[in-house]
Amino acid sequence: MFHQTTLPNGLQILGETNSSALSVALGFFVRTGARDEVAGESGVSHFLEHMVFKGTERRDAIQVNRDFDKIGADNNAFTSEEMTCYHAAVLPEYVPQALDILADILRPSLRENDFQTEKKVIKDEIARYEVRPDWSVYDQSRKRFFGDHPLGQSILGTRESIDALAREQMLDYFRRRYAAGNIVAVAAGNFEWDAFVNLVREHCGEWNGAKAAMPRQKAEAPRRPGLHTIPREKLNQEYVMMWAPAPPADSPLRYAAHVLTSIIGDYTGSRLYWALVDPGLADSADISYIDADGAGAFLLSFSCQPESAAQNLATVRRVLDEVQTKGVTDDELRVARTRLAAREVRGNERTHRRMLAVGRDWLYLNQYRTLDDELAAVDAVDQKAIRDLLARYPLRDLMTVALGPLDRLEA
Amino acid sequence: MFHQTTLPNGLQILGETNSSALSVALGFFVRTGARDEVAGESGVSHFLEHMVFKGTERRDAIQVNRDFDKIGADNNAFTSEEMTCYHAAVLPEYVPQALDILADILRPSLRENDFQTEKKVIKDEIARYEVRPDWSVYDQSRKRFFGDHPLGQSILGTRESIDALAREQMLDYFRRRYAAGNIVAVAAGNFEWDAFVNLVREHCGEWNGAKAAMPRQKAEAPRRPGLHTIPREKLNQEYVMMWAPAPPADSPLRYAAHVLTSIIGDYTGSRLYWALVDPGLADSADISYIDADGAGAFLLSFSCQPESAAQNLATVRRVLDEVQTKGVTDDELRVARTRLAAREVRGNERTHRRMLAVGRDWLYLNQYRTLDDELAAVDAVDQKAIRDLLARYPLRDLMTVALGPLDRLEA
Repeated sequence: MFHQTTLPNGLQILGETNSSALSVALGFFVRTGARDEVAGESGVSHFLEHMVFKGTERRDAIQVNRDFDKIGADNNAFTSEEMTCYHAAVLPEYVPQALDILADILRPSLRENDFQTEKKVIKDEIARYEVRPDWSVYDQSRKRFFGDHPLGQSILGTRESIDALAREQMLDYFRRRYAAGNIVAVAAGNFEWDAFVNLVREHCGEWNGAKAAMPRQKAEAPRRPGLHTIPREKLNQEYVMMWAPAPPADSPLRYAAHVLTSIIGDYTGSRLYWALVDPGLADSADISYIDADGAGAFLLSFSCQPESAAQNLATVRRVLDEVQTKGVTDDELRVARTRLAAREVRGNERTHRRMLAVGRDWLYLNQYRTLDDELAAVDAVDQKAIRDLLARYPLRDLMTVALGPLDRLEA
Repeated sequence: MFHQTTLPNGLQILGETNSSALSVALGFFVRTGARDEVAGESGVSHFLEHMVFKGTERRDAIQVNRDFDKIGADNNAFTSEEMTCYHAAVLPEYVPQALDILADILRPSLRENDFQTEKKVIKDEIARYEVRPDWSVYDQSRKRFFGDHPLGQSILGTRESIDALAREQMLDYFRRRYAAGNIVAVAAGNFEWDAFVNLVREHCGEWNGAKAAMPRQKAEAPRRPGLHTIPREKLNQEYVMMWAPAPPADSPLRYAAHVLTSIIGDYTGSRLYWALVDPGLADSADISYIDADGAGAFLLSFSCQPESAAQNLATVRRVLDEVQTKGVTDDELRVARTRLAAREVRGNERTHRRMLAVGRDWLYLNQYRTLDDELAAVDAVDQKAIRDLLARYPLRDLMTVALGPLDRLEA
């Protein structure tokens, strides 16, 4: 059962109660991420997420850790281009303690000492990512595809941008973006709604309520055909990523996009799987649908021996062209709908996943959707929906970036 | 609700029905693994697990894949030292199809052609594992600790043992170990028990019913103090593993073993975490309890810069010695019990995990245990249980193996 309310300071509270669940998942969603960073702030969203665990007036970093541990919480956080989420799953009796810790850390001290220490940790993290070719090709191709669009901004930032960041800038970002009106508290599982609202009011009622300052620009991403190679002599695999515009997160075409990408490039049983992975021509080959605020993208990627790259690229283009011109079969549609519905159901058996789904739907759609709503929407994807999707967002002229030993890639 | 029956050919059927679950998890547990292999068969259990997906009289390998995909099944298999399990999680309406596929593949054709092709795949898998230092130190230290004990036998085998294996040997192993009397079929989730039993009877009622030929030797593992180094010049980390005997899987001391290892070396909030991981002295440091048929082991492992290895080993020994001589605090006991209970509850929200738990308890304990039984047993671990455990299985004289750049490791 769904519940919703808003505190006077603008903080929104959502709950999905389920008395047969065994646990409760709690999350604080902050509507902020890399795309909301202004000049000179690159990487601050993710850096701040780390700093949130470094302590408050009431707790140092060790105490945060110990207090979560004491109640057996499974807690973590993540930063995306568009949101930052702090979450914990606990047994029903520990909701008050878990909320106390989460609400406390969301008003962090951001001490200068900790700030400088954590800078090193963040730069080490960036260094670890930079040597991963799968991440490099993603990061560089994404930037090239989105260009000046705010979705092109990097979550991690660069070692230089992190080095240059001052604590004052983080404080300023925090005041702007972590205001109560920009935060949604979500609970899913076996808990009492009224008691939960009282706890949130008690812990968060005094939070600064200013609205987020800058609304987001909602432009879609442009189409950017082209083929680019990034030579990396020492690698022995070629990593290829291909991008094209797709529906934004609130588009009615989004379900068709999920079904179509599953047909073309699910990690199992898809056209790319049978064309490239099963015969051993590529180590991996898949396509996913990235749904964001006001913009979306299809992202196709494969990796293989360099000598097979040109031939595999030709195969990928042929697969996409066949879908674009001839569509998909009724059988493929049925299988993909069943596969997505089954995954959705199995995933949502966990309260953690329900909490994430409820929070995400609220941030992106400003609505509550049940699991059954989602299943019905997936089930309703028919040939017409696929045709409409392909007409509006054709699988043509993908921007292609290849990173690996090749200087040149010609299909 | 729990149900159990046995077919005339000896195949056992278990079910835990839960009408509020959204899916059904099915599993076939075969009581066989690396420890049951005889001379010349090393690796055959795992190799056979692969071959099971290569086709039957009714389906080739591609059809197996497509048929699972058609019903949106999340299916897989694993081989351990002591069991081989084939499983699939599906939406309730697809139980008949899922059972049809699982039962069919468990009577595989084991075609000579597929056997030779898969040999290459297995040898590639072994080669990929061999270059991983974390796996090498595990594999080599486990062999050294168990010695001639059957639990010392390798799951993957060696490239040589796989090369030397003939299809006839696999057929012979299959006849011996995959008899109906050695197999347990398990379902957990939202399904009808009677209908499930009828399906299993229909598909498996004619399976060869001979009992497994060789019962297992139930000796415990010996204590083998000693420090061994395996020099690997090219590595830049030192990987250390330490072994000591622990309670067998059916011992009443097993819950105390889980709680104690969580206090000493959980990946978070444990003594080793605070002594080595949090201050950055080691990349990882943990201890786990391995519970097997008739024997158990404590396995402590850490990895770090080679120059810190000796000092870290001294710290580990001090931590173990303190626990052995002074025990643990009441607060540590409470935190560890809460942590383990919370994980157990959260894990068991998924039907897949319930199915695994029900099957495993049956194989190891020959009994059904509810989630509440498990939680009560964890909650009952007190200071006396920890003392009894440490008296019977002291944390002293662990066998230590270090793999990495060091020639010599002196604490």
